[in-house]
Amino acid sequence: MGLNVAVVGATGAVGREMLAVLEQRKFPASSVRAFASQRSAGVKLPYKAGEIVVEPVLDGWHNGIDCALLSAGSSISKAIAPAAAEAGVVVIDNSSAFRMVPSVPLIVPEINADDLPPRGKGCIIANPNCSAIILLMGLTPLHRAFGVERMVVSTYQAASGAGAQAMAALEQETREAVAGGAPRATAFHEPYAFNLFSHNATVDPVTGLNGEEQKVIEESRKIWNDPSVRISVTCVRVPVMRAHCESVNVTLKTPATLAQVRERLGSFHGVSIVDDRLGNRFPTPQKASGGDDVLVGRLRADPSQLPPGASPDSPTRGFDLFVAGDQLRKGAALNAVQIAERMFL
Amino acid sequence: MGLNVAVVGATGAVGREMLAVLEQRKFPASSVRAFASQRSAGVKLPYKAGEIVVEPVLDGWHNGIDCALLSAGSSISKAIAPAAAEAGVVVIDNSSAFRMVPSVPLIVPEINADDLPPRGKGCIIANPNCSAIILLMGLTPLHRAFGVERMVVSTYQAASGAGAQAMAALEQETREAVAGGAPRATAFHEPYAFNLFSHNATVDPVTGLNGEEQKVIEESRKIWNDPSVRISVTCVRVPVMRAHCESVNVTLKTPATLAQVRERLGSFHGVSIVDDRLGNRFPTPQKASGGDDVLVGRLRADPSQLPPGASPDSPTRGFDLFVAGDQLRKGAALNAVQIAERMFL
Repeated sequence: MGLNVAVVGATGAVGREMLAVLEQRKFPASSVRAFASQRSAGVKLPYKAGEIVVEPVLDGWHNGIDCALLSAGSSISKAIAPAAAEAGVVVIDNSSAFRMVPSVPLIVPEINADDLPPRGKGCIIANPNCSAIILLMGLTPLHRAFGVERMVVSTYQAASGAGAQAMAALEQETREAVAGGAPRATAFHEPYAFNLFSHNATVDPVTGLNGEEQKVIEESRKIWNDPSVRISVTCVRVPVMRAHCESVNVTLKTPATLAQVRERLGSFHGVSIVDDRLGNRFPTPQKASGGDDVLVGRLRADPSQLPPGASPDSPTRGFDLFVAGDQLRKGAALNAVQIAERMFL
Repeated sequence: MGLNVAVVGATGAVGREMLAVLEQRKFPASSVRAFASQRSAGVKLPYKAGEIVVEPVLDGWHNGIDCALLSAGSSISKAIAPAAAEAGVVVIDNSSAFRMVPSVPLIVPEINADDLPPRGKGCIIANPNCSAIILLMGLTPLHRAFGVERMVVSTYQAASGAGAQAMAALEQETREAVAGGAPRATAFHEPYAFNLFSHNATVDPVTGLNGEEQKVIEESRKIWNDPSVRISVTCVRVPVMRAHCESVNVTLKTPATLAQVRERLGSFHGVSIVDDRLGNRFPTPQKASGGDDVLVGRLRADPSQLPPGASPDSPTRGFDLFVAGDQLRKGAALNAVQIAERMFL
């Protein structure tokens, strides 16, 4: 007796990855149906040895579905998630539509699985913003052990966060650039080949924060259930395909040694330490791409928070680190499937 | 009666840019000679309407030279700069060889021209690290007006900082990647196409800082003549050709409003503000490439240092900003020529 699973937005970069993750993790589905817009209906998507034919989202699409993974954008989620949940479906929504709704849990399973709703009835569970997930995977072990007082974050975000079209645009613009073509902006407000730019989310004219930065701040506080954590974050899009990196400066509430920091990170499920000072091997998008773990490295005592003359091995409240995670996997599809596993397995 | 100028390391990315900048700025040279390794002797470099034939660096190379711009690496600089200075040449050295020697001035003309040595005799003047120059161009206006207590910096550094070969490698690796080839690491320890990685400078096994980060910290303190300024910096190489970006979180000594910060930056020679919140137009490598000014934008009050509920327009000590500068120009060749201008014009 397996589960009936729906992936909505199945033709997108995250939707396709959801199908791949369901298959790779042997999610016990007796049926997997793929939904997308009318325009994509009839498209065949690979799944296991065969194919799934994409269906349009029509009234009653959720009949018989136990678990629906949504990645079709906020407006679709707002339109279809509440009725499906009402009808008994466990809806795991990758859009930002419900993340900050107080009654909707916002879940990274390794971090706050305790906030999941009770099993056995319909609900909406929000999958967090990719940059927030990847950041918090690296910081939660430190938050639990020592308390995070403040984080200063700068991101290096991949094309995939803006979807399959953005990835194709980066490739095509780059192809033109190496052929000697003039820079063109095709998917974003700035040319992307051999360039980088402030994240494309709308900038709040009052605070100067863009939407991505606002999400990282708000969602981190909700996931940690800690409205007091202080966050400065700058979100930047770099010409990389599918893994985000983040440079993080953290101030802890209680001092720790580098060895303690390393021990806490190394024992956290879902985190791998890549931190070879002698070999200069640290997390990169390439190492994170296609993998499940968030990679953490460049671990070091922050010299700006060490007392003058103090050893970098002595207890201190300031550390620098660098994290990398696959945006399509832990930043989206994998996290959503992990939520489904917690709800059903 | 013009000056006799030598460019040593003239065939490199910075050397070629030095020749271009001398020409563009109409530096009053009656002769410009180009020097490089024996291997490059005889190469012809474009200059003004004609060409300069590259000479090898032989004993007495500096006879008759008034000003030598060196960009041939630390070991060459160490070998040839002292004797040239002794013989009366004003040596402006782009390597790291002499930067931290207490008797050698380390100069960004807009910032500390007062530290230049007296005219009329030979000397060595060090050109700072590119990341330090670009950072301090953006931060000095704030340091002068409000005092900088602490900076947390993450860099997005271009290939050009590692020379012409690294730029060619980025292009070639990218060409292979868009043709479907497997990633290869040809110029650095990591593949570069559609990737990014912790800076290639050697990592100190005790502090965990790499050499680039150490330079930013030490050189910033020397240029500002302020050993107390606290700096956390993470240096990252991104797949961009010739302009560096830096995400900076700053804590000022005295509070300022965003309007005051903007006013100070806007009136600093060599800085241009690119900060269009509504249009989402901010500094990028592409906008900085080929230009002289360091671009500054994403100006905003740091929400992690604003008291809860405070307006982002109220006086505060914390700000976030994003800077971009051409690594070959203001980060190297332009700054060196500007030093020469201050010494002779």
